[in-house]
Amino acid sequence: MKFVCPVPRLKYDQVQMVHGAGGMAMGQLIDDMFLAAFDNPLLRCRDDAAVLPNQWAVSTDCFVVDPIFFPGGNIGTLAIYGTVNDVAVSGATPRYVTAGFILEEGFSMVDLRVIVASMREAADDAGVQIVAGDTKVVPRGKADKIYINTTGLGILQGPALSVHRIRPGDLLIVSGTLGDHGIAVMSQREGLSFETDVTSDCAALFDLVQLAVDQGKGAVHACRDATRGGLVAVLHEFAQASHTFIQLHEAQIPIRESVRGACEMLGIDAMNVANEGKLVLAIAPEGADAVLRAWQSHPLGRQSAIIGEIHDEGVGVVINTRFGTQRVLDLPVGEPLPRIC
Amino acid sequence: MKFVCPVPRLKYDQVQMVHGAGGMAMGQLIDDMFLAAFDNPLLRCRDDAAVLPNQWAVSTDCFVVDPIFFPGGNIGTLAIYGTVNDVAVSGATPRYVTAGFILEEGFSMVDLRVIVASMREAADDAGVQIVAGDTKVVPRGKADKIYINTTGLGILQGPALSVHRIRPGDLLIVSGTLGDHGIAVMSQREGLSFETDVTSDCAALFDLVQLAVDQGKGAVHACRDATRGGLVAVLHEFAQASHTFIQLHEAQIPIRESVRGACEMLGIDAMNVANEGKLVLAIAPEGADAVLRAWQSHPLGRQSAIIGEIHDEGVGVVINTRFGTQRVLDLPVGEPLPRIC
Repeated sequence: MKFVCPVPRLKYDQVQMVHGAGGMAMGQLIDDMFLAAFDNPLLRCRDDAAVLPNQWAVSTDCFVVDPIFFPGGNIGTLAIYGTVNDVAVSGATPRYVTAGFILEEGFSMVDLRVIVASMREAADDAGVQIVAGDTKVVPRGKADKIYINTTGLGILQGPALSVHRIRPGDLLIVSGTLGDHGIAVMSQREGLSFETDVTSDCAALFDLVQLAVDQGKGAVHACRDATRGGLVAVLHEFAQASHTFIQLHEAQIPIRESVRGACEMLGIDAMNVANEGKLVLAIAPEGADAVLRAWQSHPLGRQSAIIGEIHDEGVGVVINTRFGTQRVLDLPVGEPLPRIC
Repeated sequence: MKFVCPVPRLKYDQVQMVHGAGGMAMGQLIDDMFLAAFDNPLLRCRDDAAVLPNQWAVSTDCFVVDPIFFPGGNIGTLAIYGTVNDVAVSGATPRYVTAGFILEEGFSMVDLRVIVASMREAADDAGVQIVAGDTKVVPRGKADKIYINTTGLGILQGPALSVHRIRPGDLLIVSGTLGDHGIAVMSQREGLSFETDVTSDCAALFDLVQLAVDQGKGAVHACRDATRGGLVAVLHEFAQASHTFIQLHEAQIPIRESVRGACEMLGIDAMNVANEGKLVLAIAPEGADAVLRAWQSHPLGRQSAIIGEIHDEGVGVVINTRFGTQRVLDLPVGEPLPRIC
């Protein structure tokens, strides 16, 4: 049986929150609005970073997280790690970052100083320099404290990893527990806050990518950090780009008990929740054991696990549940948690 | 007499509109907050674009203009031209642009489509490809319709132009009339709109920079597009970076009658008003005539003029007025017109 997830076409006259939420609505906006207008071969690749002819990889990201301080980091930490990770998953070594700030009139200089210090710390940790910047201020009520854009530049030593290299037979490895970042942010959200010991996993992932490339050799095909839209969004990208069908095994997917509990309370699935320090790798089977062992010996990858595999009978994502049943994992219209990054 | 403009130190507990207005408050925020934290040799140069070791020049800019549509362009036009010009003034050929969008919930899809089409048109005109992007959506009232960040990448063929190459004896050339962009935007501003035939000058300036480098040869030292803060902000950057003293001649400075009239009405000086299609060049005298002739034969430089020269007796900017008197042109605390780009 050829498995195909049906994809409805969404129609909107106005931008809605779902258009920024890493799901189907965002994907269609990007396709119909931005890719249609800006079309060129580099953009068309749809990898997290564009690979320029001189082997430089470039990626850009805006950060609008709410609240701006959360357990395990702040918007500044996120603005560095988020972008260097998007560069790193192409296989490139992140080198430079630019930073653009949109500040709301009245924003605290003390908070700004803390955020900027966190950016420097994260940049040092990730081995990048912040080489250019811009500052704009908008009147009270025209922004929410602070928004940051970062653009990252890295240099590739070998061929770029890409979703277009995914093949049937590839195994899927995730580098640790899912949903930590999203739950940490939501636990502090105004009007929602709840008690949890979960902290954001935000971290620089270049070392893990490098380990995978070194240990997995040519077997490593594609790599993504599972941010907005979580694991499910990454897997749909994998499936769409490579015209493959993905089978997951629920029992193998690492999720903290506290995250599982918070997700149950919120009525959402941890596999749809954003991470800021977790990789998903598509790798040919011969390289998988070496990478898994290498990741499990690294502080950021201790709970790495093989969670599924890639098949050729269709396009989509299904999961074999703990109860022995199978269910389809549709790409949601939008991630359940808005403004998570 | 050694001339030195006194520079007061400003103190703020909160971010104010002036911190984004291209004047002294913004300069001090950048120095005390961002440069202090992110410090590295590439950033320290303080040119519009950072020059990376591989001869790539990179620049980033956030656009928050209000209103988003104005005579002669829109926020999309500006987001491309503004950034490619910041790359071009280093002497680099702009090649790639990334684009990050922060959209307000409820923003019109029709308007978004117009803006995105303008970006493609401007990118084609400037000879750049938009290679990476990001979209975030924030709730109603947490942004003002649309903010755009662009980061530009260009390649240098020779040594970068830089404010640090400015020398006493250099002449200053401006590529045309001043203040057009700011006045065009303000004429449409809610609560202020007035009748004028002025349209924004926003345009890609790489051809003019290239002409200057070709015709002026090694004589071209520094080049800037006179955006936020206008001519006066650029000249203060020149003076501060090169520890020189700048003398202008009011009678030689090209300003449209309609811009002069609007500025009088608004009680501001056209030399402090933003442009999006005007260059200011510091050039050794032997190259000045050739560049002036070349610019005057180019559609974007017809009204180019030599407007002043650089001296070594101090740091600051003065102007010889039409009335034969001399006055100091202080760097204002902020540009008089907020959210102009």
